[in-house]
Amino acid sequence: MDVEIVERKGKGHPDSLIDGASEAVSLGLCEYYLGHFGSILHHNVDKGIIVGGKSAPKFGGGSIISPIYIMVAGRATELVPYQGRQVEVPVEEIARKSIREFIKGTMRFLDPDEHMVIDTKIKQGSPDLIAVFMRKGAMPVSNDTSIGVGYAPLTPTEDLVLGTEKLLNSTGFKKKYPEVGEDVKVMAMRRGRKVEMTVAAAMVSSKTPDASHYISVIKDVSEHLEKLASGTSLDVNFKLNAGDNYKHGEFYLTVTGTSAEQGDDGNTGRGNRVNGLISPMRQYSMEATAGKNPVNHTGKILNALSVLTAREIVKKVPSVKESYVRILSRIGNPIDEPLIASAAVVLNDGGKISAVRGEIESIMNDSLENIRRVTNMILEKKIELF
Amino acid sequence: MDVEIVERKGKGHPDSLIDGASEAVSLGLCEYYLGHFGSILHHNVDKGIIVGGKSAPKFGGGSIISPIYIMVAGRATELVPYQGRQVEVPVEEIARKSIREFIKGTMRFLDPDEHMVIDTKIKQGSPDLIAVFMRKGAMPVSNDTSIGVGYAPLTPTEDLVLGTEKLLNSTGFKKKYPEVGEDVKVMAMRRGRKVEMTVAAAMVSSKTPDASHYISVIKDVSEHLEKLASGTSLDVNFKLNAGDNYKHGEFYLTVTGTSAEQGDDGNTGRGNRVNGLISPMRQYSMEATAGKNPVNHTGKILNALSVLTAREIVKKVPSVKESYVRILSRIGNPIDEPLIASAAVVLNDGGKISAVRGEIESIMNDSLENIRRVTNMILEKKIELF
Amino acid sequence: MDVEIVERKGKGHPDSLIDGASEAVSLGLCEYYLGHFGSILHHNVDKGIIVGGKSAPKFGGGSIISPIYIMVAGRATELVPYQGRQVEVPVEEIARKSIREFIKGTMRFLDPDEHMVIDTKIKQGSPDLIAVFMRKGAMPVSNDTSIGVGYAPLTPTEDLVLGTEKLLNSTGFKKKYPEVGEDVKVMAMRRGRKVEMTVAAAMVSSKTPDASHYISVIKDVSEHLEKLASGTSLDVNFKLNAGDNYKHGEFYLTVTGTSAEQGDDGNTGRGNRVNGLISPMRQYSMEATAGKNPVNHTGKILNALSVLTAREIVKKVPSVKESYVRILSRIGNPIDEPLIASAAVVLNDGGKISAVRGEIESIMNDSLENIRRVTNMILEKKIELF
Amino acid sequence: MDVEIVERKGKGHPDSLIDGASEAVSLGLCEYYLGHFGSILHHNVDKGIIVGGKSAPKFGGGSIISPIYIMVAGRATELVPYQGRQVEVPVEEIARKSIREFIKGTMRFLDPDEHMVIDTKIKQGSPDLIAVFMRKGAMPVSNDTSIGVGYAPLTPTEDLVLGTEKLLNSTGFKKKYPEVGEDVKVMAMRRGRKVEMTVAAAMVSSKTPDASHYISVIKDVSEHLEKLASGTSLDVNFKLNAGDNYKHGEFYLTVTGTSAEQGDDGNTGRGNRVNGLISPMRQYSMEATAGKNPVNHTGKILNALSVLTAREIVKKVPSVKESYVRILSRIGNPIDEPLIASAAVVLNDGGKISAVRGEIESIMNDSLENIRRVTNMILEKKIELF
Repeated sequence: MDVEIVERKGKGHPDSLIDGASEAVSLGLCEYYLGHFGSILHHNVDKGIIVGGKSAPKFGGGSIISPIYIMVAGRATELVPYQGRQVEVPVEEIARKSIREFIKGTMRFLDPDEHMVIDTKIKQGSPDLIAVFMRKGAMPVSNDTSIGVGYAPLTPTEDLVLGTEKLLNSTGFKKKYPEVGEDVKVMAMRRGRKVEMTVAAAMVSSKTPDASHYISVIKDVSEHLEKLASGTSLDVNFKLNAGDNYKHGEFYLTVTGTSAEQGDDGNTGRGNRVNGLISPMRQYSMEATAGKNPVNHTGKILNALSVLTAREIVKKVPSVKESYVRILSRIGNPIDEPLIASAAVVLNDGGKISAVRGEIESIMNDSLENIRRVTNMILEKKIELF
Repeated sequence: MDVEIVERKGKGHPDSLIDGASEAVSLGLCEYYLGHFGSILHHNVDKGIIVGGKSAPKFGGGSIISPIYIMVAGRATELVPYQGRQVEVPVEEIARKSIREFIKGTMRFLDPDEHMVIDTKIKQGSPDLIAVFMRKGAMPVSNDTSIGVGYAPLTPTEDLVLGTEKLLNSTGFKKKYPEVGEDVKVMAMRRGRKVEMTVAAAMVSSKTPDASHYISVIKDVSEHLEKLASGTSLDVNFKLNAGDNYKHGEFYLTVTGTSAEQGDDGNTGRGNRVNGLISPMRQYSMEATAGKNPVNHTGKILNALSVLTAREIVKKVPSVKESYVRILSRIGNPIDEPLIASAAVVLNDGGKISAVRGEIESIMNDSLENIRRVTNMILEKKIELF
Repeated sequence: MDVEIVERKGKGHPDSLIDGASEAVSLGLCEYYLGHFGSILHHNVDKGIIVGGKSAPKFGGGSIISPIYIMVAGRATELVPYQGRQVEVPVEEIARKSIREFIKGTMRFLDPDEHMVIDTKIKQGSPDLIAVFMRKGAMPVSNDTSIGVGYAPLTPTEDLVLGTEKLLNSTGFKKKYPEVGEDVKVMAMRRGRKVEMTVAAAMVSSKTPDASHYISVIKDVSEHLEKLASGTSLDVNFKLNAGDNYKHGEFYLTVTGTSAEQGDDGNTGRGNRVNGLISPMRQYSMEATAGKNPVNHTGKILNALSVLTAREIVKKVPSVKESYVRILSRIGNPIDEPLIASAAVVLNDGGKISAVRGEIESIMNDSLENIRRVTNMILEKKIELF
Repeated sequence: MDVEIVERKGKGHPDSLIDGASEAVSLGLCEYYLGHFGSILHHNVDKGIIVGGKSAPKFGGGSIISPIYIMVAGRATELVPYQGRQVEVPVEEIARKSIREFIKGTMRFLDPDEHMVIDTKIKQGSPDLIAVFMRKGAMPVSNDTSIGVGYAPLTPTEDLVLGTEKLLNSTGFKKKYPEVGEDVKVMAMRRGRKVEMTVAAAMVSSKTPDASHYISVIKDVSEHLEKLASGTSLDVNFKLNAGDNYKHGEFYLTVTGTSAEQGDDGNTGRGNRVNGLISPMRQYSMEATAGKNPVNHTGKILNALSVLTAREIVKKVPSVKESYVRILSRIGNPIDEPLIASAAVVLNDGGKISAVRGEIESIMNDSLENIRRVTNMILEKKIELF
């Protein structure tokens, strides 16, 4: 590719917050269902919206004027026929608690109780589905016809975009620069070796006493980023908070560390894809993964599995330079029996496809046989979904 | 491509309804702004959610138990400094009215007043942007760095998927088969020449007196679809409402013609792409087009322009078999000065790239020069956006 | 009484609109329950709120900027065990439809679909209560310990206040003066024979082309009111729309005929008492009658019965000048077996209590024996409740 | 009076909670306005609603299934022209924070963040009113024609009703019996000397390990109440949680200490009057006091002043046995210049009206002259309003 565009919405970006809220509700439900009934029951909460609030940040302080509104919607099992009686699941309370805890665990300066209105519109799912979910041991049956898409490795530009956000949101960096909020948006445009990298980082007003402090942090952070880029083969030009205009007194200042406090909105499923990026020039799936149940929702599981499998191929088969995995489920089939599962690879110079075919097929088969491992990885948060 | 998957969500599908609602609000605002101030003013209402209701359809009738909730969110200019005073724009009323009229114009049996709760959370956009929008004559400046992606022509499978939904939702067909609701979802999986085509059409209970009537309509419609497919080079196997189980009394019956009445939810920007399809194996943009302003939101304009240009190239340059257009805007640049605009083509046998390069470049240049034509086409609804 | 204060909130006043909405929902539920199950089932929707919108009225037109929000809350039976199965009642749809139709039937220029957001928060009532309500023939059992208070006749001031609003909202008057909105608030202060009467009538902007038209209607209406007062023994001074200031361009102009369009809010149960008035110097009950079920909610039934009985006593016993009735229910008792039922009377000169005691007791007994007649009167809207 | 009915809704009763929320918002606004602008600015938030949730209490624990919804509505000054610029007031945040802190300060086991959805619908009040409120020193002008009503002393039954709730909600009692929730409803019916006293106290499930513990607490509390009553001249029969049926396993058990967790709703202004009681047989005002601004809203100030003045008269004039005060404001008059202010008294045997007239008049005059003291008492929470 001559030209490449790559974007990552950081963990405090409105689209990431609402993805995170949907996923937190799914995980909260999973935990409750497992704890009370021994099985994860049917749910799908992959719809949601965050509507920005209004704020008045100022150096050294500032305040929230109107709260951020966040709502997760979907279906979940509320009434469970269990051991001879109908047991009621506190879906709304689980959802609200999960969202609150997700926010508390993700954002340092956004208080879900003080700065947000948390709403849920989760309705009872179809009762027919309960029995299906409670059948122990059996392989779950795909709930939809969906396609999973994955590739590996990332391009150097993708790696850099991901790495940039990860750095700025790492624990160590936050300790050193608490001024930098969690809403970090990174966008790269590459032509040949030249990359223009635009980074927008919401700065936290209470940690930034004045303009000169702000400017000095921006300078420091820019240096860190340049250092990060210097380790790559790319020729990178960073712009950090390019919208600022110091003379006109324009700074990217927030009270809470996210632009959602002042008007930026978001919808579930519109942020990063399952590899953490939006790479519009590569193949990807439109499916939202956040909020779907990790048991039989192939829109979630197969996207995760495809990425994992593509990485596995690259890792285990030395002559493979790039791998692309596509898996297509069929509604009603067991999830380990997809309609199509295919891998395409680019080999290193001198590699021969005949020499690697067997190994790749075996990795693909393995992946599918162990598909339920993906459910566990999702439950244990061992795979990032957005 | 050996394998192809193509999907179209019909105009009554929950994701299409919420896309339509966002776009209707944008168009309603455009009309108001133009009428009162001579310019379209800043707005962006590309976030939204529809939360399914609860219904009890039955042959010959049935009723809605809980309404469908629909909400459009975003920003719009509410206070306009105009002719020496601050003029207030009734944004909320425009939005509500636009949504109601969109539903009335789209759905025959879904009454926005009786069956829906319409909500809006549209806040005042940044006042700085007003002046920019009121500058007459000047080329608008791109509000974001976005990529537009388009290709032409559609594959036979894509054509068939689009054609299937268009047929079932055509005026003539609805007159003949009023039983078929607007929520028609079409999904095709092609391997070689074989296509499995799954069509799910919500049937309208009040128009379907009994099971035998239902079954006979399904049979008739299936025949129409087979006839449609017989004109193609594909070997198509249709399944219409495959989830039905007549023996168990399971039919896809709805009161209003959309699955949103009974639990299906939707988010703006998660439905069809700008060519009316979801083709996960081809290149496309994640951007929501619905609800963005058609003046300077390149996430909307460039996706439309790319599709139009790709079509133009195929139409005007006989030796071009396939064309792919990509245009990349840069925030702050005039929208007719993108960072990158490129076309890739596949030629018919014997075609030579040198022979068509000039013509293609001229079409590309023309397209960009006349980019504001896209704004007008959007306003006049001459281009479908989802 | 030397001093008297009397108020009536007209049928378009925010507090009356929300009372009306609560009562409409109760009546809608009654009709549905009766039609489907042969009995009125448990419900209580006597809580509600109306939050004013925002409008821009102007002579000859104007528009609504933000809609009025209205919400009715409470409990209702949603699942009915009937003829061997669980039947679901579309409570939310009944509620929404009832509110819409109430508004359409009450207000000429307020369109519930265009100008209002209608919300409901009605939850499933206790299932234990269903059986109680389905027991045919049996006398219902009081659901609370409540007191009903009634008196008759009205004082001349009360009569005049009631008559003023009734006149301004009568069909004939509206035909003649369509400019006068339904939100008419009448307040009287009497000292001796002198009454200061303040009437605030929301004028409808679309029917009022200009200021001179407005002023002439105010003048005409004032004359009608003076004529009405001239038939009384009181010395009345009317002030119609006293807040107007013609010189400063201040008029009481509305688009819809109610002040709720521009910021005036209301709560169920805070408007007129069961005799249509607020007379803070006389005895009355704090209970909201609107929205309570008319079968066993003594807070509603006994207030209505007390007023009816007091009127009956004055009508049938010529020597009684004034009568005061108080009935106190006891939770768990049949509603026709109150804990206390007492009547106090003022006799005309020369009357003797011994001569009327028997007659009064017999009227009281009759009233209680026929207490279920009150339920029917409420269902047939033969008694005004606020 | 031969017959007397008196009720008190305890501080955790749904109607008290929503009154408390409205008043907390008013106080929060007052504090902010005073702190930032030196004056209390216009506001009126005397409308509100609380919609009960859903819970599953059980001995020793239990959980909330659906949260309680609470909403305060009204008007408040949001934009203040101050020192040459428009200053924005974070009304929504002040409101939300005030409600949360009110709940935390009132209820031990109801967590506003975990168990409640807090909503506000407070709109910008009329800008004309700002200047009026900022005029320093001047006596505020009455914003409405309202009547204040007060009497003293309480009857023994009233005293007992008030004392009962105060005892059960006292700090000492809560320490001893943490099982007793804040939602205590007391109702007394007196005939002659006999009083039937019904007390309903929501018991807290987490503090009540089992049925026998519940029963023993009820027994203990009953003894405390009997002891309280034994100090009066009344012959009182207490019923504590009379709806319980131990054999059928029916207990008044709650997770949070309020019936609002399970379906009980409330509206601002429908609970206790300004003396803390609902005494339907005595004179009182329909006006909601909670949420009205304490500067010029005579519906609040005059009710408080009337009660204070009536108490003062009884206290300072030994021969006065009972006093009744009524004050009527006139819209547009300074609040210390009411239209009517009258006191009626009942003297002890042998008392002479001529001997006390002067003293009473002087108390009345004093009260009115110092009317602004009431504003301060409200701000300092030195007067209970409901």
